[in-house]
Amino acid sequence: MAIKSFDEYVASLRKLKPTVYMFGEKIDNPVDNPRIRAGINATGATYELAQDEKCRDLIVTTSPLSGEPINRFTLPPQSIQDLVLRVKINRVLGSRVGTCHQRCTGLDCLCTLSIVTYDIDKKCGTHYYDRFIDFLKYVQKHDLTGNAGVTDVKGDRSLSPHEQEDKDMYLRVVDQTKEGIIVKGAKVHQTGSLSCHEVIVLPTRTLAQGDEDYALAFAIPADTKGLIHVVGRNSMDTREIEGVDCGNTRYSKYCPTLIFDEVLVPWERVFMFREVEFAADTVSRFSAYHRQSHGGCKSGKIDAMTGAALLMMEYNGTSKAGHHKEKVTDMIHIAETLYGCSLAASYEGKKEPSGTYFIDPVLANASKIHEGREMAQVTRFLIDVAGGFVADLPSDRDINHPEIGGLLKKYLKGATGIPVEKRIKMLRLVEKMAMESADTISDIHGGGSPAAHRLTIFRETDINYKKNCAKRLAGIED
Amino acid sequence: MAIKSFDEYVASLRKLKPTVYMFGEKIDNPVDNPRIRAGINATGATYELAQDEKCRDLIVTTSPLSGEPINRFTLPPQSIQDLVLRVKINRVLGSRVGTCHQRCTGLDCLCTLSIVTYDIDKKCGTHYYDRFIDFLKYVQKHDLTGNAGVTDVKGDRSLSPHEQEDKDMYLRVVDQTKEGIIVKGAKVHQTGSLSCHEVIVLPTRTLAQGDEDYALAFAIPADTKGLIHVVGRNSMDTREIEGVDCGNTRYSKYCPTLIFDEVLVPWERVFMFREVEFAADTVSRFSAYHRQSHGGCKSGKIDAMTGAALLMMEYNGTSKAGHHKEKVTDMIHIAETLYGCSLAASYEGKKEPSGTYFIDPVLANASKIHEGREMAQVTRFLIDVAGGFVADLPSDRDINHPEIGGLLKKYLKGATGIPVEKRIKMLRLVEKMAMESADTISDIHGGGSPAAHRLTIFRETDINYKKNCAKRLAGIED
Amino acid sequence: MAIKSFDEYVASLRKLKPTVYMFGEKIDNPVDNPRIRAGINATGATYELAQDEKCRDLIVTTSPLSGEPINRFTLPPQSIQDLVLRVKINRVLGSRVGTCHQRCTGLDCLCTLSIVTYDIDKKCGTHYYDRFIDFLKYVQKHDLTGNAGVTDVKGDRSLSPHEQEDKDMYLRVVDQTKEGIIVKGAKVHQTGSLSCHEVIVLPTRTLAQGDEDYALAFAIPADTKGLIHVVGRNSMDTREIEGVDCGNTRYSKYCPTLIFDEVLVPWERVFMFREVEFAADTVSRFSAYHRQSHGGCKSGKIDAMTGAALLMMEYNGTSKAGHHKEKVTDMIHIAETLYGCSLAASYEGKKEPSGTYFIDPVLANASKIHEGREMAQVTRFLIDVAGGFVADLPSDRDINHPEIGGLLKKYLKGATGIPVEKRIKMLRLVEKMAMESADTISDIHGGGSPAAHRLTIFRETDINYKKNCAKRLAGIED
Amino acid sequence: MAIKSFDEYVASLRKLKPTVYMFGEKIDNPVDNPRIRAGINATGATYELAQDEKCRDLIVTTSPLSGEPINRFTLPPQSIQDLVLRVKINRVLGSRVGTCHQRCTGLDCLCTLSIVTYDIDKKCGTHYYDRFIDFLKYVQKHDLTGNAGVTDVKGDRSLSPHEQEDKDMYLRVVDQTKEGIIVKGAKVHQTGSLSCHEVIVLPTRTLAQGDEDYALAFAIPADTKGLIHVVGRNSMDTREIEGVDCGNTRYSKYCPTLIFDEVLVPWERVFMFREVEFAADTVSRFSAYHRQSHGGCKSGKIDAMTGAALLMMEYNGTSKAGHHKEKVTDMIHIAETLYGCSLAASYEGKKEPSGTYFIDPVLANASKIHEGREMAQVTRFLIDVAGGFVADLPSDRDINHPEIGGLLKKYLKGATGIPVEKRIKMLRLVEKMAMESADTISDIHGGGSPAAHRLTIFRETDINYKKNCAKRLAGIED
Repeated sequence: MAIKSFDEYVASLRKLKPTVYMFGEKIDNPVDNPRIRAGINATGATYELAQDEKCRDLIVTTSPLSGEPINRFTLPPQSIQDLVLRVKINRVLGSRVGTCHQRCTGLDCLCTLSIVTYDIDKKCGTHYYDRFIDFLKYVQKHDLTGNAGVTDVKGDRSLSPHEQEDKDMYLRVVDQTKEGIIVKGAKVHQTGSLSCHEVIVLPTRTLAQGDEDYALAFAIPADTKGLIHVVGRNSMDTREIEGVDCGNTRYSKYCPTLIFDEVLVPWERVFMFREVEFAADTVSRFSAYHRQSHGGCKSGKIDAMTGAALLMMEYNGTSKAGHHKEKVTDMIHIAETLYGCSLAASYEGKKEPSGTYFIDPVLANASKIHEGREMAQVTRFLIDVAGGFVADLPSDRDINHPEIGGLLKKYLKGATGIPVEKRIKMLRLVEKMAMESADTISDIHGGGSPAAHRLTIFRETDINYKKNCAKRLAGIED
Repeated sequence: MAIKSFDEYVASLRKLKPTVYMFGEKIDNPVDNPRIRAGINATGATYELAQDEKCRDLIVTTSPLSGEPINRFTLPPQSIQDLVLRVKINRVLGSRVGTCHQRCTGLDCLCTLSIVTYDIDKKCGTHYYDRFIDFLKYVQKHDLTGNAGVTDVKGDRSLSPHEQEDKDMYLRVVDQTKEGIIVKGAKVHQTGSLSCHEVIVLPTRTLAQGDEDYALAFAIPADTKGLIHVVGRNSMDTREIEGVDCGNTRYSKYCPTLIFDEVLVPWERVFMFREVEFAADTVSRFSAYHRQSHGGCKSGKIDAMTGAALLMMEYNGTSKAGHHKEKVTDMIHIAETLYGCSLAASYEGKKEPSGTYFIDPVLANASKIHEGREMAQVTRFLIDVAGGFVADLPSDRDINHPEIGGLLKKYLKGATGIPVEKRIKMLRLVEKMAMESADTISDIHGGGSPAAHRLTIFRETDINYKKNCAKRLAGIED
Repeated sequence: MAIKSFDEYVASLRKLKPTVYMFGEKIDNPVDNPRIRAGINATGATYELAQDEKCRDLIVTTSPLSGEPINRFTLPPQSIQDLVLRVKINRVLGSRVGTCHQRCTGLDCLCTLSIVTYDIDKKCGTHYYDRFIDFLKYVQKHDLTGNAGVTDVKGDRSLSPHEQEDKDMYLRVVDQTKEGIIVKGAKVHQTGSLSCHEVIVLPTRTLAQGDEDYALAFAIPADTKGLIHVVGRNSMDTREIEGVDCGNTRYSKYCPTLIFDEVLVPWERVFMFREVEFAADTVSRFSAYHRQSHGGCKSGKIDAMTGAALLMMEYNGTSKAGHHKEKVTDMIHIAETLYGCSLAASYEGKKEPSGTYFIDPVLANASKIHEGREMAQVTRFLIDVAGGFVADLPSDRDINHPEIGGLLKKYLKGATGIPVEKRIKMLRLVEKMAMESADTISDIHGGGSPAAHRLTIFRETDINYKKNCAKRLAGIED
Repeated sequence: MAIKSFDEYVASLRKLKPTVYMFGEKIDNPVDNPRIRAGINATGATYELAQDEKCRDLIVTTSPLSGEPINRFTLPPQSIQDLVLRVKINRVLGSRVGTCHQRCTGLDCLCTLSIVTYDIDKKCGTHYYDRFIDFLKYVQKHDLTGNAGVTDVKGDRSLSPHEQEDKDMYLRVVDQTKEGIIVKGAKVHQTGSLSCHEVIVLPTRTLAQGDEDYALAFAIPADTKGLIHVVGRNSMDTREIEGVDCGNTRYSKYCPTLIFDEVLVPWERVFMFREVEFAADTVSRFSAYHRQSHGGCKSGKIDAMTGAALLMMEYNGTSKAGHHKEKVTDMIHIAETLYGCSLAASYEGKKEPSGTYFIDPVLANASKIHEGREMAQVTRFLIDVAGGFVADLPSDRDINHPEIGGLLKKYLKGATGIPVEKRIKMLRLVEKMAMESADTISDIHGGGSPAAHRLTIFRETDINYKKNCAKRLAGIED
């Protein structure tokens, strides 16, 4: 059965036995660790949507490979409409989980490989595309979630991969056997690596001659031997673990460091091997897809933040304050800007030789530049509207304390007629959405750094057309 | 014949005998006045495009009314594709004329009336829609340009129309006869009123009971008796008149004050008469269409400005300066933002009862808010890259002067290998694009003030959806 | 002895026995609670400075009351130089603690009262000034730290104090006896209330007739009976408690909710009682002083953030990246803007009737508006330069773990020649400085909301002067 | 007599016989050319101030050289107070002329030379300082205005002076005789070169070995043989010439290109000759002083723009519109930011070996970065508040026309009770202040480009101090 329910999804994760460390401890059952589980819940929302009457039509479609119903998060886009729905579904999900749902990155890898493996084969006479399609059928059949193993640790950033002192600073092949290749290295900021079934690895940057060992793409199960997930710290990380003061009552995000300690990848799962000249296109397509995804999910997250701001106005008694309305209007404007540019990138997409549709990269990057710059403003506006308790609201353990709980409830009361509990919950949600580092950093670095987005927009622009416009107006003939 | 050539267009304007004043003089032949002619040339570009092999398919389509080929500037959109092409054609035109082409406003009036007259008829049992369709057929048949008579002088802005001391501060009906209605008032900032054949009048604001005399929509020829065009001043206005130092060698913009000194409008040209309750919808639809138009033409204008910046870098010898590239990237980013939001507004449009397609108003306004705020930055970046001569370049009369011309040409020389004439021409174009007040003010006030765009975006947003997102995340049940 | 050392300061706090709750537990020894202690350390830096050879001259001065040496944090400014040194000392401290040092608010209350009590006495014939001077002598003699009890909980913000359903939403007098007054209410966001000896209470807003019970100013020891400190949550709050992954190795910030559960204030400590007409001036002076303070400490904090950004460039190997240098330049520019406006506010200060110097409020607010808007940008730049590990760096518990520590150290290595430990420590500091909610929220709401700063700047500006300039230029005579 | 009146100033200019071209014509009497005269009037305001009861004390001081009263515009600062008054006088003047008063640049050259000539002598054993002091005495004695001959035409900006194809792209010495040196080249953007008595030349950039011929500083009368002033175009340049629709009724700005067509400079007026190693310091000091000056005059100009915005609100009837008040508040905030940073730069100044006081360059550049970025916003806000007539207000020739004048006056009427003439005049002033290219370009390029300001701020900052702050907090020991 191709479409998993939320429960089936969680059950399928339980069957995996990944190696996991967090805060100095080995975690044997990550699915039931409350912090990791909050992330799993967020990805789980993509499964819930397929069970939701109102959203099913949006997210369930038919596989062109199998003719079976599949979740769109397993489908490289086969039409403009598919591209557009990526953005719309992401917006719904962003507003539904109020954080990153973590399933887009795997899909963005699938989209990329569905183009690039075809192009490599055409040029090099290899057979990656068929391997990839087999993998894709498997993913669709089991409604699996993939994780994007893209960002290497990079070591000294002024040096290319093969120039590094320690050659493992970018994931590389260290050996090959009849069964497959042995890889070594680490991928970082692996959003949701324990919420996924498969880790899909792509190169993280342009490669040149000498970097052949680093030109790799492949997929392996998240619990493959030698893979170590180290779940790092983020700003609110102990809240879910303690089960108190979470703000977002169900969802959160975590981003492990993923060490590949000499991991075997079977040949049928290898999708690029030493073709350095395709690394640039691979990373550039992945990034473009991922920036398009952000235009959806982050505008959805702003929807939830805008709602929180409006409710804080109600709960504080400032609904009529003009300067608060101005800030909410700015928040809406930013959401629509991310969304509009990302939608336009989709509608203006084009078909690639393999049949997959690719978005307009300039418009997709235009959206992401706004995100990188203006999510910080959205957060600022939200804090401004909500007030100082975003930083120092007493814990629920105090609010429910027999001695001082009553006093706290008395003094935390806001606008007339609003139960104090509502205000407390909403302040806590604001705290989570404003101060969760895993989200904040992703606004800036997700899909590459702001400088990368800018470079892309410049590189992909038709500079000569613009020059010719100016020459014609000025009366300059060449 | 439905499609006019540029020459036919100019010839058709020559047949009109409008009453025109400029700088204290009556202008008998506006078509040959160099300043007005530069504006006519800009509108003429919309006719040229229909003759241009490369653009003909973009701008020529078939009338659903007559089955004849027509210029899209006479077509209320009948599909999503029609909406999208509005933006794309405007972008081409903006980059082609480097200023406002001035033909969109008339079309935006036609679009609006094609929806609103239908809706009025449905509600009030009137017959405006048929009248309007007759007018539209006439416009299409002769490939006419319309002018949007929207903005009233407004008098004291703290008072509604009927509260004004002088009741003519908003255009109103002062009498009615068997032939038609007599109207009085003035419409201002009438971009291209002498480049058009017909003036199409709509209300400029929401009206309420008591304002019935002001609830008017109609169309009359630009040379109707009693209509007085007073061409005001703009920043570079004497350049075209003197025929020197124009910068933009062919195109410019002018925006007369248009006085309706008791003008008769025949009944068959009256499209709204005293239906106050439809004023708000009329102005809101016009504004939304017009803001969508801006997303196209202004991104096109930025294309030309970006080209000018890149050429100035070449001509000055600063092509490798990183901070200049950064500014050019910002210019591109702003263009794509205006364009992306405006395109998305088009793709997300919907069919109205009359069959006309209407854009998504939130996304159209999102585009316009960026324009109002960021065109000033585009200008600043252009000046920054070009250098100080944007303000004080010697006149061509000095550069060609027998005594000092040689010295000036010597000292105005820039990068090695670039003829000094190119640099001079490009600096002059930059001056025009950066400092032309008619354009600068339109960036801010075109299609209503920035405050109006913000109000719209707030009003058209589904506030409750956003609140519910936040409540669900915070665990608040109502 | 008037000048306390750091150790004497901590010892003096130990003698206090305040009532404290945190995370559901009663805290008997706040000084040794690691989280509260990190805040105490930050305030302690103001004592350290007085022992530091290089800074002693900056921070130690002579009391005009006693002729004894005192710490400037107990001195209402008696000269322009005193005003200027407030800013300079705050900058040093901000860069030294990398967070809020928490001692300025108490001083800002002293400054305010040294003006207002004098003015009330002059107008009302009361004797608050003498009482206040006695209190000030006591503070100076023992080198005490004060806490600003200013921000009330406010309840329904659309209602004034006496209109609230629950009359205790603003601190008020509920009874008076021979000994003193009994007060009830709560003050929130009480930065460092357990790092201080005395709580100094001022009204939080303009008051009008009917609000007499709320027009109160007084000072009481931080462990007065009935005072309850509830230390709330902030984003990184469990790090100090667990003693791991702190980032800032020594300093932090906490901001309790402070409940006044019917607290007796002896008459000799009451500095305003029911004089509603002085509430506006009191809060406006306090805010202006506090905004001036921010211009110093926050520019100092940016100094530390800038240093962190520069070191991250070194440690990552991106020191030559132009776009990183640009961002560092922006960070410096913002620091200098806050500092410059705050310094100018000081140099342009004026002597008040009581002899205390008051800063120029327009320039002080100009500084704070920048902070409220641009600290979010500083943070964004820092994250951008530092990279994605700001959000998900593995815990030191993993980095030092026997099984995976070696692998983590291998893969967390950055630029050639830089020990991995340095990079880890610096990333952790960046996380703390970028994501500490107690600081982030203070950037926006410290010294009142951004809307308040804007209102002040408008209200304190000579509008007529500006109008007259324009009239003269336009040739308009009245 | 050391202090000239406005009339004496104009009379003194009449005695000069400079070579002037404008718009293809030789101008024999520049003082009576209305366009140039508007600029002379602006500089004349610095003389008026010395006659104005209220300002005399501000602007008149005593020469430390002669003991005579002098205008401060002839005084290199001898104290912190002198530095501060530079800013304050500039603010008064900016608000008084609503444009550039054009006398600061000459003073900034005097300030620079009073430091640099001393330093060269100390290092090289030359005698420039005495020569310079003689020149300064002469300037003070006759209350002369100087013009800053700094910006060279620069040719190919990727090449240094001696690498240029045409060696005259930077002003250079081409010969030397017993009488003096012969110089050749051109200086551009010579604001007010015909409003001044003396042209003071400095190098425009850092020079290196090989550039010796370009390392020059000197002063010559504005009508020296071989000097050719070519007055170029700016956006509103024909208004003064035609004497209609000027907006600013009395003042304006013009910036000639100044050609040195083999000009003899007598030895006693040569202040630097081939000392390449002092070029960098010279230009950096000049720029720093000039950026400080801008912080005064531009904040003053914003005062006038703010006044115009406030009056437009009154005249349009929008005084109660919250979003207009917000924009005015932003305008005030920007003015205070420029002013505050510039004042702080002054108060934090230091004494140089020659006795002249130099400002803090980081703070002075911080001010200028704001100007370069935010004056465009001030302009945008002003246009936003004023409305569309900024671009197309009918000419006074039409408004006073016998046939249509009455109609225009009827329809241009604004708020109840405001004479239409006031509104017309104020709209015209807004047009001038918003769209005058000579001012707009100076906001960006005055005192060097924005990139130069940023470079300076980075270079002059103590980077190591900041790094050490971060290391200490992170617990990193070197």
